Amino acid sequence: MVRNRATLKDVARRAGVSYQTVSKLLNRQIRLSEETERRIWKAIEELGYTPHYNARSLRAQRSFTIGYSWPPSPPDETNPILDQFLQSMFVAAEARGYFLLMFPYHYQVDKQLAAYAELIDAGRVDGFILSSVEYNDPRIRYLQDRKFPFVAFGRSNPDWRFPCIDVDGGRGLYDVTQHLITLGHRRIAVLAWPEESRVGNNRLEGYLTALSEVGIPVDHALILRGEGRLDFGYHATHHLLSLPLPQRPTAVVALNDYMAIGAMQAAQERGLRVGEDLAISGFDDIPLARYLTPPLTSIRQPIWEIGQQVIQHLIDIIETGVPPEPRCLLVPPTLIVRASTAPNAKASALSNSPSAKEVVNR
Amino acid sequence: MVRNRATLKDVARRAGVSYQTVSKLLNRQIRLSEETERRIWKAIEELGYTPHYNARSLRAQRSFTIGYSWPPSPPDETNPILDQFLQSMFVAAEARGYFLLMFPYHYQVDKQLAAYAELIDAGRVDGFILSSVEYNDPRIRYLQDRKFPFVAFGRSNPDWRFPCIDVDGGRGLYDVTQHLITLGHRRIAVLAWPEESRVGNNRLEGYLTALSEVGIPVDHALILRGEGRLDFGYHATHHLLSLPLPQRPTAVVALNDYMAIGAMQAAQERGLRVGEDLAISGFDDIPLARYLTPPLTSIRQPIWEIGQQVIQHLIDIIETGVPPEPRCLLVPPTLIVRASTAPNAKASALSNSPSAKEVVNR
Repeated sequence: MVRNRATLKDVARRAGVSYQTVSKLLNRQIRLSEETERRIWKAIEELGYTPHYNARSLRAQRSFTIGYSWPPSPPDETNPILDQFLQSMFVAAEARGYFLLMFPYHYQVDKQLAAYAELIDAGRVDGFILSSVEYNDPRIRYLQDRKFPFVAFGRSNPDWRFPCIDVDGGRGLYDVTQHLITLGHRRIAVLAWPEESRVGNNRLEGYLTALSEVGIPVDHALILRGEGRLDFGYHATHHLLSLPLPQRPTAVVALNDYMAIGAMQAAQERGLRVGEDLAISGFDDIPLARYLTPPLTSIRQPIWEIGQQVIQHLIDIIETGVPPEPRCLLVPPTLIVRASTAPNAKASALSNSPSAKEVVNR
Repeated sequence: MVRNRATLKDVARRAGVSYQTVSKLLNRQIRLSEETERRIWKAIEELGYTPHYNARSLRAQRSFTIGYSWPPSPPDETNPILDQFLQSMFVAAEARGYFLLMFPYHYQVDKQLAAYAELIDAGRVDGFILSSVEYNDPRIRYLQDRKFPFVAFGRSNPDWRFPCIDVDGGRGLYDVTQHLITLGHRRIAVLAWPEESRVGNNRLEGYLTALSEVGIPVDHALILRGEGRLDFGYHATHHLLSLPLPQRPTAVVALNDYMAIGAMQAAQERGLRVGEDLAISGFDDIPLARYLTPPLTSIRQPIWEIGQQVIQHLIDIIETGVPPEPRCLLVPPTLIVRASTAPNAKASALSNSPSAKEVVNR
């Protein structure tokens, strides 16, 4: 259980060697007989000796610490993946003797880079995890210039090469669009993000691919872009539902669940039955998605796995100096079909009971 | 902007003094003329010299790091306050030159304490923030035994004295119960937590006080305890609504929003209009509360302020060795009245528009 802290002297005494011998062994400055070395390691283990972090760290020229910073969620939303992502990362880090250091996210580029520079210069971290990565992300440029280890959760410019892991959001949108086409939908609207959103464009591509594969022409009146907030989904859907009947969509795919919830409210205000008169899907599979009326079809990201992998990759880079291959890993998300798109899933989901059966594709 | 790292030698060269002089000044081992000292500080500033963290840290015998660990949210819920609490804490910490170190939460007591012990023994942190504090919390005992600085977000045993900041959850429940009594309700049910929940009991007290103040006898059939999950709220409310009419409640106050959402679903399944036939309130004011149909009356915790204060108090303790007075600070939450309890708030809230007016008491 909890131990009082043992010192180097205690270890030396128990192993029957001098203080200097133990110290030199731990600093790899000496070769000892196999027998002596074994005795020292045994004493270290039995006493539960932990080298003082600062001393260990000065020796190793490492801090055994990983820096992470992320943009705060807007005041009226909750970041649906944050807790799981953090927990997954620091569980993975602990298993390899590392900890995560958090620091504030600055939107101003020079302040942002200064925060990274300070942590590097002060020797406080051995590497960084980046998320919310965008096109021309200045953090990637800066860390590559300084040759400082990092792994990104997310891609950036297509021609940039850096270690990253990302959810294949395009695959998710492809899957849900194909699902709607299979159900007979031809006029499928999409609630997308602004054109400068890298994540938004990756997702949108999947929608476009699914349409073109079956020869449905793209109708730009059905692609609405805005901030990924509930109120945008609400107003955009009111707009879509006031289009002349031949142009009006029969399905709306949203790039996140908040927009989908806004879309559901707009549809319900107009007296439409979601899932029957208008199909609606989201992305993220927030905990409430399954409890909505009707339960919301959504796309789930494998966040736990991603948290584990970004840390494993980063520590590998820190400890070996070699970037992982493939440099960038794309992980497929999972389509969760519920009654908001699939009337046939309705019977099992309509009860709103938490055990409502889910149809999981892939 | 971003600088290349300046060394002590660069500082010495620019200030026209020896390396040793700068080093001794920074270690407070020397007194120099005002003029020389000013020249050195000017050089440090102009070069943007950052003493290497490990060196600074060994000198100061401090790590300038605060440890924090919290229990992960259940898989089908999102921790509604986590992001804001973390952001607030590391913004406050950065302002005073500290960072936050995250580590996994272990449910097994000896593993849990071992994690705290290791961080202390390795000299990696100067103090801890605790949250999810319960009765007889072993972390508090352990840290007090070791005389190691910490501040808790939350109270524990009434007779334990330790630095803490807590939301006055009892006050929140008192306010919402009184609000319902004012509206004419006499049979008010409460969806509570298990008896061993310290937070749950603090909140429940407020409900009991509000009833006793106006002489409404407590009906134990209306106090239901369970895990604070949506499905418990759902099943408990079905149970309450199947009581014989004279025993049936006209209002349900839940100790969190997830249980309140489950309660709303049960009421709606029975054809009741929430807010008119049955009043329902929650606690936490999760982002979706205002978007529910009808919008949910809830209680908002001042999380940003609490994050700032726990860090300020902890750093004060670390740097001065003196615990703050008052030892424990209680911060009142805010009652947000919406249509799920107040039919008169309905007109403005029924539109579901994100700008729905909120009636804010206190």
